[in-house]
Amino acid sequence: MKSSAQSLTEQLAARFAQRIRDRLLAPGARLPSVRQCAQQQGVSPSTVVGAYDQLLAQGLVEARRNRGFFVRDSVQTPGEYALMQSQTRARLDGQADGPEQGTGPGASAQGAVSPPRAPLNATALIRGMFHGISDKPQPGMGVLPQEWLQTTFLASAVRRFCSAKELNAFSLQYGEPAGDAGLRRALSQRLKSLAVQAGPEQIITTLGATHALDIVSRTLLRAGDYVMVEEPGWAVEFARLDALGMRILPVPRRSDGPDLEVMERYAQAHAPKLFVSVSVLHNPTGFCLTPASAHRILQLANQYNFHVVEDDTYSHFASDHATRLCALDGLQRTIYVGGFAKILAPNWRVGYMAAPPNLVERLLDTKLLSTLTTPALLEKALAWCVEQGQIRRHAERIRQRLNGARSRSVALAQAHGFTFAAEPVGLFGWVETGVDTDALSQRMLDEGYLLAPGALFHARRTPSSLMRINFATTQEPLFWSTLQRLCAE
Amino acid sequence: MKSSAQSLTEQLAARFAQRIRDRLLAPGARLPSVRQCAQQQGVSPSTVVGAYDQLLAQGLVEARRNRGFFVRDSVQTPGEYALMQSQTRARLDGQADGPEQGTGPGASAQGAVSPPRAPLNATALIRGMFHGISDKPQPGMGVLPQEWLQTTFLASAVRRFCSAKELNAFSLQYGEPAGDAGLRRALSQRLKSLAVQAGPEQIITTLGATHALDIVSRTLLRAGDYVMVEEPGWAVEFARLDALGMRILPVPRRSDGPDLEVMERYAQAHAPKLFVSVSVLHNPTGFCLTPASAHRILQLANQYNFHVVEDDTYSHFASDHATRLCALDGLQRTIYVGGFAKILAPNWRVGYMAAPPNLVERLLDTKLLSTLTTPALLEKALAWCVEQGQIRRHAERIRQRLNGARSRSVALAQAHGFTFAAEPVGLFGWVETGVDTDALSQRMLDEGYLLAPGALFHARRTPSSLMRINFATTQEPLFWSTLQRLCAE
Repeated sequence: MKSSAQSLTEQLAARFAQRIRDRLLAPGARLPSVRQCAQQQGVSPSTVVGAYDQLLAQGLVEARRNRGFFVRDSVQTPGEYALMQSQTRARLDGQADGPEQGTGPGASAQGAVSPPRAPLNATALIRGMFHGISDKPQPGMGVLPQEWLQTTFLASAVRRFCSAKELNAFSLQYGEPAGDAGLRRALSQRLKSLAVQAGPEQIITTLGATHALDIVSRTLLRAGDYVMVEEPGWAVEFARLDALGMRILPVPRRSDGPDLEVMERYAQAHAPKLFVSVSVLHNPTGFCLTPASAHRILQLANQYNFHVVEDDTYSHFASDHATRLCALDGLQRTIYVGGFAKILAPNWRVGYMAAPPNLVERLLDTKLLSTLTTPALLEKALAWCVEQGQIRRHAERIRQRLNGARSRSVALAQAHGFTFAAEPVGLFGWVETGVDTDALSQRMLDEGYLLAPGALFHARRTPSSLMRINFATTQEPLFWSTLQRLCAE
Repeated sequence: MKSSAQSLTEQLAARFAQRIRDRLLAPGARLPSVRQCAQQQGVSPSTVVGAYDQLLAQGLVEARRNRGFFVRDSVQTPGEYALMQSQTRARLDGQADGPEQGTGPGASAQGAVSPPRAPLNATALIRGMFHGISDKPQPGMGVLPQEWLQTTFLASAVRRFCSAKELNAFSLQYGEPAGDAGLRRALSQRLKSLAVQAGPEQIITTLGATHALDIVSRTLLRAGDYVMVEEPGWAVEFARLDALGMRILPVPRRSDGPDLEVMERYAQAHAPKLFVSVSVLHNPTGFCLTPASAHRILQLANQYNFHVVEDDTYSHFASDHATRLCALDGLQRTIYVGGFAKILAPNWRVGYMAAPPNLVERLLDTKLLSTLTTPALLEKALAWCVEQGQIRRHAERIRQRLNGARSRSVALAQAHGFTFAAEPVGLFGWVETGVDTDALSQRMLDEGYLLAPGALFHARRTPSSLMRINFATTQEPLFWSTLQRLCAE
C-alpha cells in the first residue's frame, strides 16, 4: 500500500472507507486499536491516527471514550436498519446450544444477546464476491469458480428457443403462473430419482432457490411468528426471516440432524409454524441427516403442527440416496426447494419448490404477488438440459473434480495446523482456526482474501473461531500459509 | 353446454367446480339462486338443484339457511387465507370516498366493511388470462394482445448474447447485485428523457415492476405500518400490501390526482410511511397527475415524512412530458418504478427502480434477500433494444395502433349505451355499466369473457357498477352487444 501518490494516511483512510461502504466492516464493528493497526499495516501510529481522524471527519466512524473507534450505524442505512438490527437481537428467543455458544466475549447463556461487534454483513459477502477483493481464489465464496462451470450445452439450449417465432410464442403473455410446464415435468422426474414423489402440478418454478424460500416464508408465516432454523446456518436465510419480522429459534445442527430436544422444547414453548432445514450437505458443516433423525423431525412436525421446508440446494453434490425429509414425508408437511446455482450457472436464477397439494395455490398466489411469473426462456432452456441428461453428466464431472479438490484442500489445511469441525464432504469445509474469525477476516481482507467467518452462520452473530471454506477455492498453499501466519500473530 | 355425454347436471356442476377452483368464483361468493341459474343456463330448476347438491357433496359450497349457496372459504386456501381475508377488512382504516363507496348492499359508510360477496380474486384474473377462458379477445386483460407485441428485434437481441463464450462470461457467477451495468446506463438515459435524473448507481433492476414494488414495500415498511394507496387502484398491489401485513389507507383518485384532503387527514391521523401512486395513465382510470397536485403531494410527503413510490408502468403509452413526481422531486422522497411488460414482452420480466441515493443500499439488500440477483441475459438483451432505439420506435407504433383501437372501442361502447367514468386515454377504459359488475362478470364468463369488475380495484372490494376494459381487446361488436344484453336482463 505504499506505492501510490496518495499519502499513507490517505491510503489507509480510503481503504477503511471502502470497506465500510461495502459493509465488509459492518455498522457497529470496532476498528483495530491504533497500536494494532500500525503494527498490522507496517505504518507509524501517527499515520493511523491521521487516517482515523479522516474517517471521523467523513462521518464513517465514531470514537467512544476509552473503547476506540466504531463504524457508525447510520453510515449505510440510516435509522431503520439500526432499528432492524436491534430488533434482531430482541427477536432471538430461547437458547442456542451451538458448540461456540458462550465462548465469545459478551455472549450470555440465554435470551437476547448484544454481540460486542457486528461481523461482516450477510449480503456484503455476496457483493464482495462480485466486486472482487483481489484476483486470488476466494475461500469464502458460496459457489464454484467460473472455470469449473464452463459448459457449451447451456448456450446450445438457449439458442433452441430464441428464434423470433419461438421467442414470440412464449414471451408475449405473462406465461404459466406455476412456471414452464415442460420444466415442471422434467423436475418431477428429477425428484422421482430422489424418491420425492411430486407431480408437475405440485411444482412451482421460482427465481432461484432463494426466491422459493422467500415465497414459502411469506406464505406460511406472518410477522411475529416463530420459525426454527438450523445453527450454524446460512446468514441470508436468517436475514430474510428477520426482515420479514419473524422470531428466529436457532436449533443446533448436529452431525445426524438438528438437536431434537431443543426442537421439541421450542415446539412446546413457542408453537413455531416452520422449520427451515438444509438436510443434505448442510451449509456450512456438510452434515447429512440420518433416517432416524428425519423420522423424528416429521413426528414432531405432526405432533406440534408445523411445516418443514427442505432446502436441497446442494443436492447435485450428494448421493441421490441421501435421506430427504420430503421423501419420507411424501410432501405432506414438507416443502422441497431446489435450484441449479451451485452446479450450472449462478446467474441463471431458476429454482423451484414442490409442495403439498393443499399449499400449492397459496404459494402460487405469493409468487404472483412477488414477481408475477418467471421468465420462460431460462426455464425452457433448463428443461432441455435436464431432459437431455446434460445436468446429470455435468454434475457427475463436477463431483469428481470436487472430490480431488477437497482432498488437496484438506491436506493443505492439516499441513498448516488447521482442523475440521465436521468431516469434510461436499462443497464446504467448516474449519477451526483457534482465533476469532471476525477479526481474522478483516486481516485476511488486507491480504486479498474474503473469508466467511463463523459469526455469519449464527443467528445471534456470535463471534466464533470457525469459518467456512470452499474446497474448490482453497487449493493454493499461499492461502493456507497466510492464514496460518495471521492466526499465529 | 348440452352437447356432451355428461348429464346436464354434471356439466353444470363441473363448470361451477372449475370456476371455484380457478377462483373465478372466490371464497365467500354467492351462487345465483336456483331460479336465476335455471333461467340463465336454460335448464330446469331440478337440474340446478342437482348440480348444487353435487357441489355440496364435493365440499366446494355450503348452504346457508334462507340465504342460498356460498363458495366455502376453505376450498382453495384453508384456515389462514380466510384469516387473511378477515384481517384485510379489519386492517382497512379511515374512510374511502370513491364514487361507488356506500352504494353496494351491505357497505357501511366507514370503518371495516364485510362485502356481501367476494368478487373475483386478484390473482385469479392473471391465472384466468393464462388458462384461457375462451378464444375470444379478453376485455379484462391487463396487457396488449400477443399479436400486437410481435417483434423480431427482441430475438435478435437475445441471440447477440447466447454464444457459449458470451453466456459463460456472465452466467457463471451471481452477477451484479444491482443488475446489468449496461442496462442501468441505458435506463438512466431513458429516465433523463422523462426529466427524472438518476445515475446508473441509483438504479436497481428487478424481475418486472411487480418485483420492484414488492422490494420497495418490504424495505420501507414493517408489518402493521400504514400505507396510502390510490382507489380505485390495482388489486395485486392491495393484495401484496395486505399479505405483508400492512394497513391500507385508500385515497380516492381524482382526474387531477389523489384527493389531497383525504391524504392529509390520513397523514395526520396515521403517520403512513408510504404512498403508492400510478401518477401517469393511472390504472384503471387513465387519469394523469397535474403539476399542481404533484407539487402538493411532495409538500405533504415532506411535511408528514413519508415516501412516495411512483409506479410508471404505463409510461410507454404516455407523453414523455407527462408530470412525474420523481421528476419534480429529483428522487429525494420518491422512488421510480418502471417495466416493459406493457410494451415489449410480459414474460420477459425485466423491471427496475430508481431510488434516492440514501435508500439504494437498503433496497439492494432486500433484492438480494428475495432473489439474490436477476438474470443478466434478459437484461443485456433489453439494454441492447433500449440503446438501439428499438423500444422507442416500437412504442411509437403501438401508441398509434392503440389510438385507433381506442376510438373504435369507445364508439362501440357508446353505441351500445355505455359511458366512461373517465376520459378514455391510454390502455384502459373505466366503463359505467349501471349494474353490479361482480354479478355481471359471472354471467359474462358463461359467454366466454373474463371481465375486470370494479370491485377488483377497490381495497375493500366494494361492489361496483364500473369495470375496466382493455381498448385493444374490445374491438368486436359481439362483446358489446353481449354485455348490453346481460346488463338489460
